[in-house]
Amino acid sequence: MQKQAIIVRTDLEMGKGKTCSQVAHASLQSYMKTKEKNPEWVEQWTREGQKKIVLKVSSKKELEELFKKVRTRLPCSKITDAGHTQIEPGTVTAVGIGPAPEGKIDQYTSKYKLL
Amino acid sequence: MQKQAIIVRTDLEMGKGKTCSQVAHASLQSYMKTKEKNPEWVEQWTREGQKKIVLKVSSKKELEELFKKVRTRLPCSKITDAGHTQIEPGTVTAVGIGPAPEGKIDQYTSKYKLL
Repeated sequence: MQKQAIIVRTDLEMGKGKTCSQVAHASLQSYMKTKEKNPEWVEQWTREGQKKIVLKVSSKKELEELFKKVRTRLPCSKITDAGHTQIEPGTVTAVGIGPAPEGKIDQYTSKYKLL
Repeated sequence: MQKQAIIVRTDLEMGKGKTCSQVAHASLQSYMKTKEKNPEWVEQWTREGQKKIVLKVSSKKELEELFKKVRTRLPCSKITDAGHTQIEPGTVTAVGIGPAPEGKIDQYTSKYKLL
């Protein structure tokens, strides 16, 4: 089974709508990256109903460390917000991973809690 | 300027993560629909930084009425959740519109508040 994981920071005190838009950015960017690098994962994920899970981290450091580990292993994307509203320009807010096989994603994300 | 609007129900009492995943579903589905029907809007939107706004409605009726109005005019997508967690299978949760020119979207969505 394929899934996409989106990991978002909770320490920025973004409102619900802002958080949702960062998650959507990460989901779309990571989808496009995966479509380019592993199109067969995207096809399978689409057939299976496009499972997505949203997880949380509580610091920039945690998110950057996760991204550093994952970036050479799985298609993924880090979102930096333009900062028009609520937060400073250039703030790293979220990371999207995959879609990719569940087991491969869980290796990196199993310690994070659902948002 | 192009933007994508995502409209989500607040009456379902979904948790934050669930809400974010519904918004991400709507964003991705509507992106794919637009890419098929109006690829030039997607290209322009990508060049401009992929503006997304997340709005709220408080009932199924409101969301269905919006979708009925928009569906023949703009590329859009209605999300029905499989209901594995938190809500009943087949529940309509969100609608994504575009990316499309801001003015065309605002015609239908200007009365809704940001999530």
